[in-house]
Amino acid sequence: MDVHEDETLGEGYKLKLNSYDLGVDIELADAIQRIRFEHPEVRAVVVTSLKPRIFCAGANIYMLGTSSHAFKVNFCKFTNETRCAMEDDSQHSGRRYLAALNGTASGGGYELAIACDEIYLVDDGNSAVSLPEVPLLGVLPGTGGLTRLVDKRKVRRDRADVFSTLAEGLKGKRAKDWGLIDDTFPTSKFQESIDERVAQIVNAGNEDEKHGIKLHPLTVGTSPAPTDTRDYEYVSLKFHREKRYVDLTMRGPEADLPASPDEIQKLGDAFWPLQAYRELDDALLHLRVNEPEIGLVCIRTQGSVENVLALDRTLAANRDHWLVREIILLMARTLRRLDLTAKSFFAIVEPGSCFAGNLLELLVASDRSYMLNNPDEPVAIAFSGLNAGAFPMSNGLTRLQSRFLSDPQRVDEVLARTDSLDTEAAEQTGLITFAPDDLDWEDEIRVAIEERTSLSPDALTGMEASLRFAGPETMDTKIYGRLTAWQNWIFQRPNAVGPNGALTNYGKPTQAKFDFRRT
Amino acid sequence: MDVHEDETLGEGYKLKLNSYDLGVDIELADAIQRIRFEHPEVRAVVVTSLKPRIFCAGANIYMLGTSSHAFKVNFCKFTNETRCAMEDDSQHSGRRYLAALNGTASGGGYELAIACDEIYLVDDGNSAVSLPEVPLLGVLPGTGGLTRLVDKRKVRRDRADVFSTLAEGLKGKRAKDWGLIDDTFPTSKFQESIDERVAQIVNAGNEDEKHGIKLHPLTVGTSPAPTDTRDYEYVSLKFHREKRYVDLTMRGPEADLPASPDEIQKLGDAFWPLQAYRELDDALLHLRVNEPEIGLVCIRTQGSVENVLALDRTLAANRDHWLVREIILLMARTLRRLDLTAKSFFAIVEPGSCFAGNLLELLVASDRSYMLNNPDEPVAIAFSGLNAGAFPMSNGLTRLQSRFLSDPQRVDEVLARTDSLDTEAAEQTGLITFAPDDLDWEDEIRVAIEERTSLSPDALTGMEASLRFAGPETMDTKIYGRLTAWQNWIFQRPNAVGPNGALTNYGKPTQAKFDFRRT
Repeated sequence: MDVHEDETLGEGYKLKLNSYDLGVDIELADAIQRIRFEHPEVRAVVVTSLKPRIFCAGANIYMLGTSSHAFKVNFCKFTNETRCAMEDDSQHSGRRYLAALNGTASGGGYELAIACDEIYLVDDGNSAVSLPEVPLLGVLPGTGGLTRLVDKRKVRRDRADVFSTLAEGLKGKRAKDWGLIDDTFPTSKFQESIDERVAQIVNAGNEDEKHGIKLHPLTVGTSPAPTDTRDYEYVSLKFHREKRYVDLTMRGPEADLPASPDEIQKLGDAFWPLQAYRELDDALLHLRVNEPEIGLVCIRTQGSVENVLALDRTLAANRDHWLVREIILLMARTLRRLDLTAKSFFAIVEPGSCFAGNLLELLVASDRSYMLNNPDEPVAIAFSGLNAGAFPMSNGLTRLQSRFLSDPQRVDEVLARTDSLDTEAAEQTGLITFAPDDLDWEDEIRVAIEERTSLSPDALTGMEASLRFAGPETMDTKIYGRLTAWQNWIFQRPNAVGPNGALTNYGKPTQAKFDFRRT
Repeated sequence: MDVHEDETLGEGYKLKLNSYDLGVDIELADAIQRIRFEHPEVRAVVVTSLKPRIFCAGANIYMLGTSSHAFKVNFCKFTNETRCAMEDDSQHSGRRYLAALNGTASGGGYELAIACDEIYLVDDGNSAVSLPEVPLLGVLPGTGGLTRLVDKRKVRRDRADVFSTLAEGLKGKRAKDWGLIDDTFPTSKFQESIDERVAQIVNAGNEDEKHGIKLHPLTVGTSPAPTDTRDYEYVSLKFHREKRYVDLTMRGPEADLPASPDEIQKLGDAFWPLQAYRELDDALLHLRVNEPEIGLVCIRTQGSVENVLALDRTLAANRDHWLVREIILLMARTLRRLDLTAKSFFAIVEPGSCFAGNLLELLVASDRSYMLNNPDEPVAIAFSGLNAGAFPMSNGLTRLQSRFLSDPQRVDEVLARTDSLDTEAAEQTGLITFAPDDLDWEDEIRVAIEERTSLSPDALTGMEASLRFAGPETMDTKIYGRLTAWQNWIFQRPNAVGPNGALTNYGKPTQAKFDFRRT
């Protein structure tokens, strides 16, 4: 039994400022994904630093002080999705994350620590945990820091208030008493104590031996304008820049996919759901970070409804196999990434499409759906067992539950439909926003796109974030809905980024000057 | 049996732009308060317009285009507190609110309507309901509009998306089919249909006759600098402007308060809890709107712990009496107003103070508490039965439940304490952040105040909003936490308020020009 020591964190934050290089956060997201697929035998992940005395000192301050507003907000969101992926791994795949803080964990470093299951801090008289964003930078610990403090670790709010305004943070015993860490060990016993805890976790398990698969890099081809596309094997983006929208087409699976875990394992990362959703994930991130002016994504699918349903039956039948479980969890995370993307989504349901089962989630995740109503060119959608709970949203509901909040029993009614639904039947279920006939179809879509992309992008971001997550709130929706909004505000304010702002002046001889009016 | 037709809405929005005059929203808040205390016999409130064909056309657009950022955000918060007070009245006092839309209800007008229990729209071929903020103004229906749409009325999110981007809104049958209104009646039958519905509600009741009390205007005296105070009978504000903080002192009740409902009713609005909390409410609103530079409120109390506990016993024993119920509900709303105020609160527990029962909520609501630890000058706090649920926060928890989220059984343990707790005992319960001794007391408070008021006011607002509401989320916390944050952002953005912004250009011949990069 191996324990994976994640050495990509060893050098601390090494953030480069290219548009798509989030530095250690990209590496961390990648490392976690690789652990899950390539090292399923790993039971404990120790998040630590190869450079003692600095765990993660939040060197992203430089990034925050110099990068664009959009980059900062995107960075916070992506970083948080990585934190949530660690928690998802812990909750659903039973892997245990240990933050072994062999030095000060400050800002983003401590935020990474509180995404772990357990936090251990070296007691060297010097090392501390801290969230110095408010006192030093005039911004928020916005990658979930504040929410995880009071909601996950349930730190008393008056103590959370003191801690979050104390630049130097807290050490040793007091940090433990306040619940900020789980334990603290002297320098001489630190490594040994962590090793002991890891051994406990590793020895507690008694599972079958598992062998990972290899995740290869995705291949993607691009064509310049006027074609202007980005093509993966199963996902294509076609840009319409002058109109500020993109067509995202996802191609469904073939008919002859493997049906047993052994065959799936042999096929590895070429297995359709794994490859197609990794590609979708990459496409969404590409759109977020590199295509800020694209305001609308028109989602289309191509393929056979029956093939999608057959695949979903295979996945459902083998959910208990570790690889199938990981694949379903990855599909779910990708769909949540879509829910959380600050762009409008319209699902376009045309002849030849296959919005069924897992791909139907794309339609239900969209802000609107348009389905052609033409008896001469029938179109169909269909449900599979996976729509019943395999892909929860951040609020813990399925997308169907969220859709039918006013009429919960309709969820069971539609899930009982094993047939394909034509346009009329689909409309009756409540999944279709508009079903124009073939005479109106092109005009209606064109006008809808034009109208959407003419609206204020800020108002749309706020509106969609407010409408997409009806129903219960969870720690995750708090983090994304509440903290993203606060970050969006605070990162814009002169008190942070103006010539006299705290972020602007950090590390300079000059001091921040605030406009003290509160709102 | 009377039906109160609220004529203050008759003239539509008539907003003046003095710093403390929120126009119709102040009148509406006042009218609802008066209905509850002065007209307890009223069972149904019809919210309608005396000017047919315009219900509330959102003339606050002018206000939003010309007033300061702080005013806009404060306005949205206050307006929402009024909406929540209507819902509180409906839920806890059984009064039914009917929106009788005898004309188009647009923007704020429809937001007011969805705060009502039932919405009826005239079907005159013209009148519609609409939320045109996104398409016309580049901002959000931010006084709870979007959240109430999907969470309270549970409108399907794709339809909510269409509705919220459609400037002209929806009329008649479609508005009803989509759940935006409850019914629609032709012009000729509108009044009659509303009257019928009101008669149903009124006749369904069968309660004892109730007689209201009179709510007199509060009297308040102010002294200019250097004294610089604002004094009510039981509440005083003492400003320290150069240090950007204020002392808010609340004086506890006398010993000889009435103990029976009849005596309470006779005393009317001079009864301590009603008067003191109305004064506190007014003081909080004054601080929010007129004192933006004051960042910190030091809360102090003066009086007898035993008197507060005696009063709480009276209130608890008579909770079923309408007036006592209304008083407790008003106290709860005022405490929620404190939770939602964008200023820091420190509770200062000194000799002579009376943080007990209902006044202990002030301490638990504060971001921190300081309690003197000096055996020669004993100080005490105490719990009463009212701390167990009479004053819920917006998230539905008591402040004690929220404080002890990590250790829920401690709530019962502390509520079982019927004695007064000295500093040591109080610290052990987990309610006291710091308990300096008399040598350190003054310095520690002074330094804490100086540190707090030196921090970025924006970061503090975001931090406090994130730390104060740990635990479950509700529609109310969504509205305040999420929408306030989005509003804070969107109201700052050039796309709304810049020279080419939509708010700036509304009603002018020039058109908004957006920066279309989305975040």
